[in-house]
Amino acid sequence: MKSLEDRIVSEGIVKDGDILKVDSFLNHQMDPALFREMAREWKRQFADAGVNKILTIEASGIGIASIVAEEFGCRAVFAKKMLAKNMDSDRYSTQITSFTKGKTYDVTVSKRYLTAEDRVLIIDDFLANGCALEGLMSLVRQAGATLCGCGIAIEKGFQDGGRKIRESGVRLVSLAIIESMDETGIRFREQ
Amino acid sequence: MKSLEDRIVSEGIVKDGDILKVDSFLNHQMDPALFREMAREWKRQFADAGVNKILTIEASGIGIASIVAEEFGCRAVFAKKMLAKNMDSDRYSTQITSFTKGKTYDVTVSKRYLTAEDRVLIIDDFLANGCALEGLMSLVRQAGATLCGCGIAIEKGFQDGGRKIRESGVRLVSLAIIESMDETGIRFREQ
Repeated sequence: MKSLEDRIVSEGIVKDGDILKVDSFLNHQMDPALFREMAREWKRQFADAGVNKILTIEASGIGIASIVAEEFGCRAVFAKKMLAKNMDSDRYSTQITSFTKGKTYDVTVSKRYLTAEDRVLIIDDFLANGCALEGLMSLVRQAGATLCGCGIAIEKGFQDGGRKIRESGVRLVSLAIIESMDETGIRFREQ
Repeated sequence: MKSLEDRIVSEGIVKDGDILKVDSFLNHQMDPALFREMAREWKRQFADAGVNKILTIEASGIGIASIVAEEFGCRAVFAKKMLAKNMDSDRYSTQITSFTKGKTYDVTVSKRYLTAEDRVLIIDDFLANGCALEGLMSLVRQAGATLCGCGIAIEKGFQDGGRKIRESGVRLVSLAIIESMDETGIRFREQ
């Protein structure tokens, strides 16, 4: 999506360790006008999928997901991260290791809000090694829900999460795919 | 707001310890159509305030705040909770004690995204003893920003946060104010 790529170039900051800071418009601070454009593009690409539930993970996916859910005319649910073991039988759970924070979280969703009737579009801000997305897909499987696909704002195409997920047959729409980034600039994959 | 009160009555669950669970539509699972109605009501009431920044706190305020920001045509920023001391000079910070979780968090916001040019509407899902709202107002003061007011979805009118904040002269718009709740039902303050 050209407008997202332009925004990444104009406001994104590349840091050591393959970190891309986009917290002026995507997380921490959020630009809802851009989120609306992103939501319309996912709606266009998943128009035939019968999506009736958006699933994301706290915290930075929530703002995007609420606007995407409005675009699809459905509700959104966000999986919760818990550092302590805090399981109960009312929740599906899985473990996710954060690439940027080097921590492993228990990630859970209430069984009431993810069910076999749900046709799920997973939404998140970043895709790198795919660990968060794999965890969310595990929650969808545990619920017996149907996975329609995944919508990602920014995919780090130089890490292998996107390739693995596409090879598994999951429909994955990343609105900007970064091929490489360093102090000389950011290069995107043509789509 | 009648439609919010109706939704609280139809889907809310009252639990011991003055807990009201509304996670089918307000947090955990989110209904963006209801958020849009709420956003329009705050826009109507703060139409003359010149709001150009929405401030909320992770996680459950984020979905509401992103739709409110779209309604006001501005960006939203969410304050981050950190359990560990993780301060740096680029962030304003304060401490907030969670009523429901019995924990104290460091709550921070980047100095880049809250500045003296900002005219801030604070948005959150719940108001009880007012500790979270006091913390967010402290961040606004530290930044030298202008506080236009606070928009709350559900105020527990039987706790004293709302009264204290109104008495301090802050413009506070709670869309539903609960006077009392128990196993026999939920009663709202007339507004």
